[in-house]
Amino acid sequence: MKKYLFTPGPVPVPEDILLEMARPIIHHRTVEFENIFAEVREGLKYIFQTKEEVFVLASSGTGAMEGAVTNTLSRGDPALVVNGGKFGERWVKICQAYGIEVHEIKVEWGEAVDPSEIKGALSKNPSIRAVLIQASETSTGVMHPTKEIAEITKERDDVILIVDGISAVGVFPQPLDAWGIDVLIGGSQKAFMLPPGLAFAALSKKAWKFNERSNLPKFYFDFKRYLKDAKSNTTPWTPAITLVIGLASVLRNFKNEGLEKMFQRHARLAQATREAIKAIGLELYAKHSPSTALTAAISPGDINAGKIISGLRDRFGMTLAGGQDQAKGKIFRISHMGFIDRADIIAVISALECILRDLGYKFDFGAGSRRASDILGVE
Amino acid sequence: MKKYLFTPGPVPVPEDILLEMARPIIHHRTVEFENIFAEVREGLKYIFQTKEEVFVLASSGTGAMEGAVTNTLSRGDPALVVNGGKFGERWVKICQAYGIEVHEIKVEWGEAVDPSEIKGALSKNPSIRAVLIQASETSTGVMHPTKEIAEITKERDDVILIVDGISAVGVFPQPLDAWGIDVLIGGSQKAFMLPPGLAFAALSKKAWKFNERSNLPKFYFDFKRYLKDAKSNTTPWTPAITLVIGLASVLRNFKNEGLEKMFQRHARLAQATREAIKAIGLELYAKHSPSTALTAAISPGDINAGKIISGLRDRFGMTLAGGQDQAKGKIFRISHMGFIDRADIIAVISALECILRDLGYKFDFGAGSRRASDILGVE
Repeated sequence: MKKYLFTPGPVPVPEDILLEMARPIIHHRTVEFENIFAEVREGLKYIFQTKEEVFVLASSGTGAMEGAVTNTLSRGDPALVVNGGKFGERWVKICQAYGIEVHEIKVEWGEAVDPSEIKGALSKNPSIRAVLIQASETSTGVMHPTKEIAEITKERDDVILIVDGISAVGVFPQPLDAWGIDVLIGGSQKAFMLPPGLAFAALSKKAWKFNERSNLPKFYFDFKRYLKDAKSNTTPWTPAITLVIGLASVLRNFKNEGLEKMFQRHARLAQATREAIKAIGLELYAKHSPSTALTAAISPGDINAGKIISGLRDRFGMTLAGGQDQAKGKIFRISHMGFIDRADIIAVISALECILRDLGYKFDFGAGSRRASDILGVE
Repeated sequence: MKKYLFTPGPVPVPEDILLEMARPIIHHRTVEFENIFAEVREGLKYIFQTKEEVFVLASSGTGAMEGAVTNTLSRGDPALVVNGGKFGERWVKICQAYGIEVHEIKVEWGEAVDPSEIKGALSKNPSIRAVLIQASETSTGVMHPTKEIAEITKERDDVILIVDGISAVGVFPQPLDAWGIDVLIGGSQKAFMLPPGLAFAALSKKAWKFNERSNLPKFYFDFKRYLKDAKSNTTPWTPAITLVIGLASVLRNFKNEGLEKMFQRHARLAQATREAIKAIGLELYAKHSPSTALTAAISPGDINAGKIISGLRDRFGMTLAGGQDQAKGKIFRISHMGFIDRADIIAVISALECILRDLGYKFDFGAGSRRASDILGVE
């Protein structure tokens, strides 16, 4: 059976990139690799919309999340963490593991944080040194308002904004320099359409000042070492060479497409998916700000979402993600990041309609596909 | 020009493994991936010669080194570090970054540590909690005597032996259970003949007791999380999926070849390389215990080793590593780990002779090739 991958990371990897990475491996202390790395550095700056260095870590995104904390904060520092899902919760756990005093803004799953809550918390606790958010909370399919939050934090020299942009960078705008984001991280298996194994991180000048006084222990994720070595187009530890080579190719494609077009491409796929879901009569899990990266839909009636997911897998070869923790069995998630195109979205919506009908759900069969087609058919 | 890679990581990756990793990517929370991961767990236990769990980290080897320290020790713990090269130095730096009280045994580059020195240091400082060594110090091509050191540490309940086996596991014996090693780590780009991006770590029961009272902060490399998730054939964070798939294939091949044969294969290539180097009239950099993983040779007379390396690269398409720091310009290193066979060694020795002759070095031209051929030609 032909296979389709709609999980929010990994996403499908283009065939030519897979083959590029299957070429004979080269050593990383060679002119050949240094030239590739120079290209990667430039390409990442373009995608992160920054003049600052963007580091390439051999790790999953969680490694970059840890580095974002350990490179800027100090033991006992109070930090404000927006926790509106599985990844917000991960910020909490990372901070706790490193002895950060966590002030949590608990956001109901499916909701976006209200920036005025952050403004309020910062006024109430002037000792807070950092605000940590997800640009896109992958577990709920919600975007938190980075821009509005950055407007609050950039007024303060003593507060930084740390943004988990793993499901955001390259999907929708998160311009580090223009908005005043202080730490922005990304991962290879999302918009970058590569296998997992690389994470990215960039720091603003304000964040580097925090780095100077940061006393949390770090070694593998010590960004200062990466900054130093990046200037000679290398990394302090052996890089994940094949993934970096794939990244260079992907970034070349991104440059050709252009950032604006990348954002438009993702926005249109997201809109079509959402509208189709609604036309089928389903509810989005995101009550506000549904993410451009993925769409989380609530399973209708008393149908367990697991049945929809297994149906799509077994009958159509399509892999989707379900819900985690409290959302388990309630939702299914369709990713439209990276190497997903119009035909993929039309196909998954059509397959979803077939499965829903077989599960006994009553709706206007074909309405979802028609709606998706209508939105995506236009040039 | 046809290319040959003789660097001590990465080593050449077999073509079928490269293509295996170029197959369409799959999601890691699927039965398909869990089955692969179950196979990887078994295969790694076989290679690490242990009944304990072996963790698969998405990182370079340095990440596993950091984890070896942060998962077993506590702030202020005294540790005895054998520093006889670039990677011994890395143990020192990692320990220092985490507030470990470092007691250093400085070993001259090219020398192996004398176990009696370790015995002496442990008697003199009974508060020392850990001994950290390299099984094979890649920067100098020397093996430290793990077995003899383990005999000392296993007598003590309050001291663990942490072994960097990155250039050792799968190359020559480092049986975790049989010798009483407490932490053993490995990396994908050495004997495992994969691209860099995966590291491995296994802990003895004694090391797990240390883990219980270890208070160093950790999150991404928190081995307890990996242990918990390994039981359900998964990892706490997104694994480097394609590399894990390649690993499953490689481990299958290893099982077919058998561990003893793997060790013999490496030992014979190492012996042939060393004997050939000596037949050419060159000196090994290792004064004792030359490593089975790679051979470091001293450039003769006043010939800068960089000239030998660039000659081999430009005229024969062969990439070798030079020396680092104090050994820079003095030595060149030929790796015989992983996907390197008899023909490769014959070829590099022959090419080396051509380059040396052109650089004006006087020797019995052909003696090295003859010696290598003589050793490797036998079944």
